[in-house]
Amino acid sequence: MIATEHSDLSKLCVHTITTKPWNIEEAARNFSGAGVKGITVWRDALEGKDIRKTGQMLRDHGLSVVSLCRGGFFPHRDQIKRTDAIADNKKAIEEAWQLGTTMLVLVCGADPSQPLEESRKQIRDGIAAILPEAEAAGVKLTIEPLHPMYADTRSAINTLAQANDMAEALDSPWVGIAVDVYHLWWDPHLEQEIKRCGTNGNLSAFHICDWKSPTTDLLLDRGLMGEGCIPVRKIRSWVENAGFNGFNEVEIFSNAYWREEQSGFLKKIIHAYQNHS
Amino acid sequence: MIATEHSDLSKLCVHTITTKPWNIEEAARNFSGAGVKGITVWRDALEGKDIRKTGQMLRDHGLSVVSLCRGGFFPHRDQIKRTDAIADNKKAIEEAWQLGTTMLVLVCGADPSQPLEESRKQIRDGIAAILPEAEAAGVKLTIEPLHPMYADTRSAINTLAQANDMAEALDSPWVGIAVDVYHLWWDPHLEQEIKRCGTNGNLSAFHICDWKSPTTDLLLDRGLMGEGCIPVRKIRSWVENAGFNGFNEVEIFSNAYWREEQSGFLKKIIHAYQNHS
Repeated sequence: MIATEHSDLSKLCVHTITTKPWNIEEAARNFSGAGVKGITVWRDALEGKDIRKTGQMLRDHGLSVVSLCRGGFFPHRDQIKRTDAIADNKKAIEEAWQLGTTMLVLVCGADPSQPLEESRKQIRDGIAAILPEAEAAGVKLTIEPLHPMYADTRSAINTLAQANDMAEALDSPWVGIAVDVYHLWWDPHLEQEIKRCGTNGNLSAFHICDWKSPTTDLLLDRGLMGEGCIPVRKIRSWVENAGFNGFNEVEIFSNAYWREEQSGFLKKIIHAYQNHS
Repeated sequence: MIATEHSDLSKLCVHTITTKPWNIEEAARNFSGAGVKGITVWRDALEGKDIRKTGQMLRDHGLSVVSLCRGGFFPHRDQIKRTDAIADNKKAIEEAWQLGTTMLVLVCGADPSQPLEESRKQIRDGIAAILPEAEAAGVKLTIEPLHPMYADTRSAINTLAQANDMAEALDSPWVGIAVDVYHLWWDPHLEQEIKRCGTNGNLSAFHICDWKSPTTDLLLDRGLMGEGCIPVRKIRSWVENAGFNGFNEVEIFSNAYWREEQSGFLKKIIHAYQNHS
């Protein structure tokens, strides 16, 4: 089954980082006004805010608070930094609870001064260490496998198979996985690993954007859906066939789009969502 | 078994692109003078040259001509371009034969306007189409799996498992595989796939450099061995344990190093080779 076009915006979520020039009040007002139904909040957008009131403000605008981004960054060669990371992740769980969302996305981290295997072990230990807090807060810890070009410092979990292995090993209802097309589109095993992820009840989030050719920056040159080579709609059909019924989250880091007037950019997002995802 | 330090340079090969500011005569003279024993020639270094005489010149400097870089780029949505690519690959095989090397490295290609699966099929068809010429010339077609960040335009073969699958499917003594640490270091299955590659007689080449943190350019910011996070020596031990006994080829694309005085850079390469690979 190939996914059909989006006739409405009922499953559209936008990340605050996507429209980074807007503060969270502007994002809420503009997302809501444009018909967007979900918002994923990046922690930087909450700095200096009363988090409970901010969550209420978002809901008052009719927005579902899909998730908080991001926890993670567990691996460090230095034990003190690992302890600090666990404390910061517990804080992030608390923030997610205050915000009123049930999902915390984990960018798991990596330390280039130690082997990937060691970073992966520290990720698993780190998640296990914060599971009691996640359960108490009703917040699902959502592992996001990152593109292999981020294996040095951002994540030692670089394929959906690895994320599936880890989620299955942790074996908790408070652990899930975020499938992001930007990170995973190239993987020849993607369809089968999405099926496995859904079958095992771990498919918690779906992030969309596109890979531009050429891509001029390793981090900040993501494209709108349809601008690049990722078969977003095909991957969405795999995710939906695997039982996923949640939001399609637009997560775009782009210096070029951040320089644009953001209301016009939001219109482009909605057009791209309806026609290319 | 962990690989030991390099006490000599008998297995050191340098790619002409690594010292791009030098023409091939300068590269030959300087490599030879520094004790380098092998050279891999990029086709741009042969432009306007008599290729037979150039091969003889390299051998006169005591250099083994390890391989010619590069053929490939088979996939195109346009049939005429696919036909042109096959013609160009036959020309590259002829050039390799004239140069007196027995290996042609393939950067297999990808067309972002079609699905990866289609590009992969076209790669397989392209290699099959040129196998008779490779056999007649005694030139091994060496598939180089490329990092997933190049899946849009440079190669739809992005893991060693995929390259192994393709080489085994083609099942020819004239097909091999190049293991490049830059492209493959992040892969959790790397050790087992290197073993499989060696066991099946397909491990033809080993390329080294390093992944810098941060990496500021998707193509032209590779590091010297020891400058980054790739466990080059550990991967070399896997390659040697799998039966590989050929050259260690230093392949670095770096705007920063190309701006340096190249004799000094060559000294750094040799130091890095002896101490970090």
